[in-house]
Amino acid sequence: MEQRVDTIHQREQLLQQVTAILRRHKHDEELADRDHRAPRERVEDLLHKRDLERLQRELERLHPADVAYVLEALPLDERLIVWDLVKADRDGEILLEVSDAVRETLIASMDEQELVAATEQLDTDEIADLAPDLPREVIQDVFKSLSVEEREQLRAAMSYPEDSVGALMDFDMVEVREDVTLEVVLRYLRRLDEMPDHTDQIFVVDREDRLKGLLPVNRILVSLPEKLVSEVMVREFVEFNANEKADEAAAAFERYDLVSAPVVEDDRRLVGRMTVNAVVDYIRESQDIEILSAGGLREDEDLFASVWKSVKNRWTWLAVNLVTAFIASRVIGAFEQSIAQLVALAALMPIIAGIGGNSGNQTITMIVRALALGQITRDSARKLFVKELGVSMLNGVIWGSVVGLFAFLIYHNWQLGLVMTAAMLLNLLLAAVMGVSIPLLMDKLGRDPALGSSVLITAITDSGGFFIFLGLATLFLVR
Amino acid sequence: MEQRVDTIHQREQLLQQVTAILRRHKHDEELADRDHRAPRERVEDLLHKRDLERLQRELERLHPADVAYVLEALPLDERLIVWDLVKADRDGEILLEVSDAVRETLIASMDEQELVAATEQLDTDEIADLAPDLPREVIQDVFKSLSVEEREQLRAAMSYPEDSVGALMDFDMVEVREDVTLEVVLRYLRRLDEMPDHTDQIFVVDREDRLKGLLPVNRILVSLPEKLVSEVMVREFVEFNANEKADEAAAAFERYDLVSAPVVEDDRRLVGRMTVNAVVDYIRESQDIEILSAGGLREDEDLFASVWKSVKNRWTWLAVNLVTAFIASRVIGAFEQSIAQLVALAALMPIIAGIGGNSGNQTITMIVRALALGQITRDSARKLFVKELGVSMLNGVIWGSVVGLFAFLIYHNWQLGLVMTAAMLLNLLLAAVMGVSIPLLMDKLGRDPALGSSVLITAITDSGGFFIFLGLATLFLVR
Repeated sequence: MEQRVDTIHQREQLLQQVTAILRRHKHDEELADRDHRAPRERVEDLLHKRDLERLQRELERLHPADVAYVLEALPLDERLIVWDLVKADRDGEILLEVSDAVRETLIASMDEQELVAATEQLDTDEIADLAPDLPREVIQDVFKSLSVEEREQLRAAMSYPEDSVGALMDFDMVEVREDVTLEVVLRYLRRLDEMPDHTDQIFVVDREDRLKGLLPVNRILVSLPEKLVSEVMVREFVEFNANEKADEAAAAFERYDLVSAPVVEDDRRLVGRMTVNAVVDYIRESQDIEILSAGGLREDEDLFASVWKSVKNRWTWLAVNLVTAFIASRVIGAFEQSIAQLVALAALMPIIAGIGGNSGNQTITMIVRALALGQITRDSARKLFVKELGVSMLNGVIWGSVVGLFAFLIYHNWQLGLVMTAAMLLNLLLAAVMGVSIPLLMDKLGRDPALGSSVLITAITDSGGFFIFLGLATLFLVR
Repeated sequence: MEQRVDTIHQREQLLQQVTAILRRHKHDEELADRDHRAPRERVEDLLHKRDLERLQRELERLHPADVAYVLEALPLDERLIVWDLVKADRDGEILLEVSDAVRETLIASMDEQELVAATEQLDTDEIADLAPDLPREVIQDVFKSLSVEEREQLRAAMSYPEDSVGALMDFDMVEVREDVTLEVVLRYLRRLDEMPDHTDQIFVVDREDRLKGLLPVNRILVSLPEKLVSEVMVREFVEFNANEKADEAAAAFERYDLVSAPVVEDDRRLVGRMTVNAVVDYIRESQDIEILSAGGLREDEDLFASVWKSVKNRWTWLAVNLVTAFIASRVIGAFEQSIAQLVALAALMPIIAGIGGNSGNQTITMIVRALALGQITRDSARKLFVKELGVSMLNGVIWGSVVGLFAFLIYHNWQLGLVMTAAMLLNLLLAAVMGVSIPLLMDKLGRDPALGSSVLITAITDSGGFFIFLGLATLFLVR
């Protein structure tokens, strides 16, 4: 039985143990390096072989997902020491569990032969998941080692686009015909010895592999053995087309509380199945991508990536923001004369721009979410516009008065206070209009409104806020 | 069989159908209102009763989750018309599926009796989920209608904190003793007629309800009926304590690909089970909360909430940001004399502050994520500091040169360009130090680093950026 490390606390303890062993190991190595009395390797043998052996035994008892966790949390040099200690026949499973960035570092440390060996314990759908990261020659070697049926599966799994049901499905389905009794099914199952994980139902197909129904395992248990499959099977059920989008299938799993579901081709031939664990992984991954991109990271970054790699991962976002900052800067530049006359404008303008951006982001968060859930119709879009304008109007009056008062109290200039209030109100209205329009427009153009909306609204409320505030001030305050 | 609406496209079509019927209904009503020849209700009867009846039939065929979707996507008045059409015996299930904000509007439209009736079809763990939103008298009535065992369950379910395993568990577990044969188990199961959803295993307990092992349904199927439960059962498995944190249990479900798991009390008595569908819902909800709070919404907002409710939901974030904006404004205010002398400073300063904020948020996103995964040890924290400082140094040199060049090209003042470059570099270093320290510090203080870190870093890089840039300018450019 494997050791499980369920809680974060247990995992941190594990990590500390591993790190301590590696530290001691490194320390000993340094000692050995410093004193040259014996060849380094002999000393190493004597000093810490025992420690590493203990670590290896520890690792063997861990679930692949937990080994993956340890690998991800270790700096590169220590990561590779641990990776070398992991038994070769578990390499494949662990490569599946680590993040893309860490997988890259592990694969880079392996030679062709090791990589081919790593895939040997994997199912074809799992090989397909790894394939994009493997060198071309390795894939060719792997391909040769597969049976005809497996090659067909691998080809199929790799042919579907990344975000489709086909890319998430596996091939571990149990199939039966509808004209046999449950008795026969049971005998067949007993011959299997063990059923694939997440088998809550087996699939009833005809000679052409066309899906006729589902036979829930629980129904087999509670029905009499002499009944026919066709009497017991479920005839209406959720099925997915392999070309369907993965996120829609995930939403269906969530709404209908599924554990597994059949995946068919356009001709209703059963080609695979989708399981809830693939869905959970998928949901987590999309969530990760969303959080990373909201934070301005292009992709998952190895915690201990080199400085250069990190800079590359982050530069797009910074560059885009730099361009919008330059534009905002030029907007301010156009009003330099006004600022020279009334320098308080310079101190006050970031308030207008900042709060506008915050308010716009609130609106966008709402709309993007509603779009993702398919909750917005043409008609409700109009209602949302009205509502968001109302919210902005009210916020504009409230917060506009606050900032107006702030300006008045500091600069003792009531006209300046009024301009602040008016600018705040107008910029919040701008934020509301844009906050609703940008995601709706992006959606209409077929782009993902979650990506880039936030940068765009901030750019608009920044430049727009500066323009409104400095423009009003130039009209009414400066002469 | 229920109608399933799996894809977003199908759901949008459904929504459009419903809206069209409601629109016609409303239009007819307005006509009837305008011409007063007949009492309004009679006209209503004649005009659109048929339409609404069709809608009611449509709704009956929908899965509760899909009815919930329709309700969430409709404005309040139309939502309540649809809600009235839904059969009373489905109210409970649907209330469970809608978002908190929408649930509130639905419950507000129901009287005490309807609410008590709505809970009648629900399991005790589901009643516990609804309870916080129900009026006190309703809960008392519901309580009276339950059996002693159910009362005990309800009390138990309600006694666990919101984010604990106990709050997510259900009580639909099948229990057997270890000293019977599989034959006996099978006969017992057949008597149940149907097994609870997500029963991939049944629980083996002793006389005191202490958990002895798990009997996977698949093992029952593939084993010989004359075997004893104790021979077939699994003795080592993942179990959760009811007081454990829900997110750790969810992570375990994800890593070990579980479908269900036993929940025990401190004395190892089996008190419930956790299923993967509860985990999926939980993951989605936490994801939602994270997205909402990152966008500055305090909680889930009904898409068609009143302006006043929306303002209340959003004001905290705006207020906090206003305070940080005021502080930044005063930092600028301290340098008004320098700005008056060199007004270009006003146009350039938002660039320094903005890019600093962006870079800081990138760092924070990485660190918060690593903390959530438990990947950071004291030792690796130091490594991360060094790495982030390196990234900032490199970014500072690259982007600092770009903005320096930009300043030089526009203002033909090379000293100004140098100050820009230096300020950018320093502000990015500040962002790196704070981006690592803030989440680590919040974590150490036992607070959730995901909440508020982003506001804090932006506040620091704004005020800090203004201070660094204007300070350097005052030292070297202005006299």
